[in-house]
Amino acid sequence: MDNNSNSDFKNVDASALPSFIPVGPANLKEKIYARVGTDLARIEAEIDRLLGTDIPLISVVGRYITGSGGKRLRPLLMVLASRLCGYKGDDDAKLAVVFEFVHAATLLHDDVVDHAELRRSRPAANTVWGNPAVVLVGDFLYSRSIQIAVGYGDIRIQEVLLSATTKMSEGEVLQLVNSDNLEIGESEYLEVITRKTAVLISAACQTGAIFGGGGEAEEKALKSYGQNLGIAFQLIDDTLDFTGEAEELGKPVGNDLQEGKATLPLIHALKNAKAAERLRLRQIFTSEDISAENVREITDIVGRSGGIDYTTSKASTHALRAKEALRIFPESPAKETLQDIADYVTCRRT
Amino acid sequence: MDNNSNSDFKNVDASALPSFIPVGPANLKEKIYARVGTDLARIEAEIDRLLGTDIPLISVVGRYITGSGGKRLRPLLMVLASRLCGYKGDDDAKLAVVFEFVHAATLLHDDVVDHAELRRSRPAANTVWGNPAVVLVGDFLYSRSIQIAVGYGDIRIQEVLLSATTKMSEGEVLQLVNSDNLEIGESEYLEVITRKTAVLISAACQTGAIFGGGGEAEEKALKSYGQNLGIAFQLIDDTLDFTGEAEELGKPVGNDLQEGKATLPLIHALKNAKAAERLRLRQIFTSEDISAENVREITDIVGRSGGIDYTTSKASTHALRAKEALRIFPESPAKETLQDIADYVTCRRT
Repeated sequence: MDNNSNSDFKNVDASALPSFIPVGPANLKEKIYARVGTDLARIEAEIDRLLGTDIPLISVVGRYITGSGGKRLRPLLMVLASRLCGYKGDDDAKLAVVFEFVHAATLLHDDVVDHAELRRSRPAANTVWGNPAVVLVGDFLYSRSIQIAVGYGDIRIQEVLLSATTKMSEGEVLQLVNSDNLEIGESEYLEVITRKTAVLISAACQTGAIFGGGGEAEEKALKSYGQNLGIAFQLIDDTLDFTGEAEELGKPVGNDLQEGKATLPLIHALKNAKAAERLRLRQIFTSEDISAENVREITDIVGRSGGIDYTTSKASTHALRAKEALRIFPESPAKETLQDIADYVTCRRT
Repeated sequence: MDNNSNSDFKNVDASALPSFIPVGPANLKEKIYARVGTDLARIEAEIDRLLGTDIPLISVVGRYITGSGGKRLRPLLMVLASRLCGYKGDDDAKLAVVFEFVHAATLLHDDVVDHAELRRSRPAANTVWGNPAVVLVGDFLYSRSIQIAVGYGDIRIQEVLLSATTKMSEGEVLQLVNSDNLEIGESEYLEVITRKTAVLISAACQTGAIFGGGGEAEEKALKSYGQNLGIAFQLIDDTLDFTGEAEELGKPVGNDLQEGKATLPLIHALKNAKAAERLRLRQIFTSEDISAENVREITDIVGRSGGIDYTTSKASTHALRAKEALRIFPESPAKETLQDIADYVTCRRT
């Protein structure tokens, strides 16, 4: 965690710096991960075990995509949510991995869809293994993860999981339909990020509640926590595409722009920048090739017109709502960690 | 149904003609479809209804892939299997469509994996809509279909379905790993076709048994029926790639060869053809471009060495086993149709 976030805005005109950069307590990430170390180790062991198939290509591609430095956010949330609802055993790790595998499957298919070249500082899976292997191993991870969930014998968990994956794949299609579309409105954008990011995070939390034996109120609260956390997470992701460091992000800055994705910082700027700047944004966004210089120019305009501020503030609102949703639970280490995660999500730099 | 199957072997040397071409009663296909007309209409209506989403691209690509003249074999089998076990209502059609959607999802992803250009005489989906749309709509169909199955609230059905889809995706990866591999043995080939084709057909039949209220014996019998039917179906598919007519197949003859897939007729020929011919088979199969002339040459050698005969006879054995599995059921129109389908599968020309 770099607490001095201003140093990360090198490419942004000084006047464009967000007036509101939420910064959590120092070393929040380290604090969280120190507290969940045992859980993470259990999750890692399960991932490794479940990827040991008798078809080497599946193990290799599966380990490549899940081993590329992900945060294990989704399985961790499932484990914490179940603990918050009173679960004390260790049969949760396998179910938690379902959410990492579904996430990994979407990353694999996204790489094919976006013709990605880099993910988390490594060559995207499709550039290493080719589209066919990546599509098929994605299908395997997807199917295997739902099969694991079936093994828990609880039809409610299946309902939550499949409702999430169906909404997710609809969200992916929606995003594709909207690519290169500058006319997308804020509510349509929120619909896309809710579907493509928030529903799975929300489903992980809700599943934790069901698995942990929570009642209707607990399930609803954790579903809401996950939904709001997921939206905040994606909003910050979208600002980092402008303000982050390529090295920290593990992919080029302006990646969304290159892929024709209009995210909230840009959508806001398109409404609020000066007329000449709005025209310039459109010119660059719709051009064939977007240079690093172009990305800096867009970032400057987006910053100046308040696009980063607006998006960051919206993320903070959702993170706050996430924390509020937890108020029905008594204080506990699990609750504190979930609150810290909500704080961390809005101040993260990677 | 062309009953005079010999006329379809135009490209094969006369001496290479299979000595055993199983021929069903005249107009078997018409007989079957006439008897299941009402069921097919219900299945079609459900497919159409379930593809009506609020995201037009999903409806359009979904209708394109499911509307390209498929036989609706899988949903039909599920409906017939449930009727064989005593089901009399009409809540079966929606569950039956699950198997058509899963099948459609694999067709979409296969088109991306194989860089297919034609499917059933029409441009393959990826050439019309592009890889991204095809990957993502495939994901949607897959997820939506499992979600529909979840809606039936029976964890056993989920177990059967997800066991099938996981084995299928493993089979697809196995096939990819074995592409351009001439060293694949018969048992490995059978493993691939069992996974990629037979398990879903088997799952459709087994699900019909569960949904229809059949007991353990009925479930086991219908699972075995589907498994054997599926293997027979794929074996015949693989012979048609040599002996079929491009016009009837809706794709070029020798398509598997072009895609580097060594199927049983070729595997058999590689063991049983004369030494010089075996060498020639290897030369052509491993060359960059396989011309129409090359395909004819391979087909001649495969025919002469008994590869078509052997595969067709193996298909008949499995079709027979499929019918034998039904012996525990009393005679009924559903049973007769399932028997006819097993006969049809081995004598079909498309």
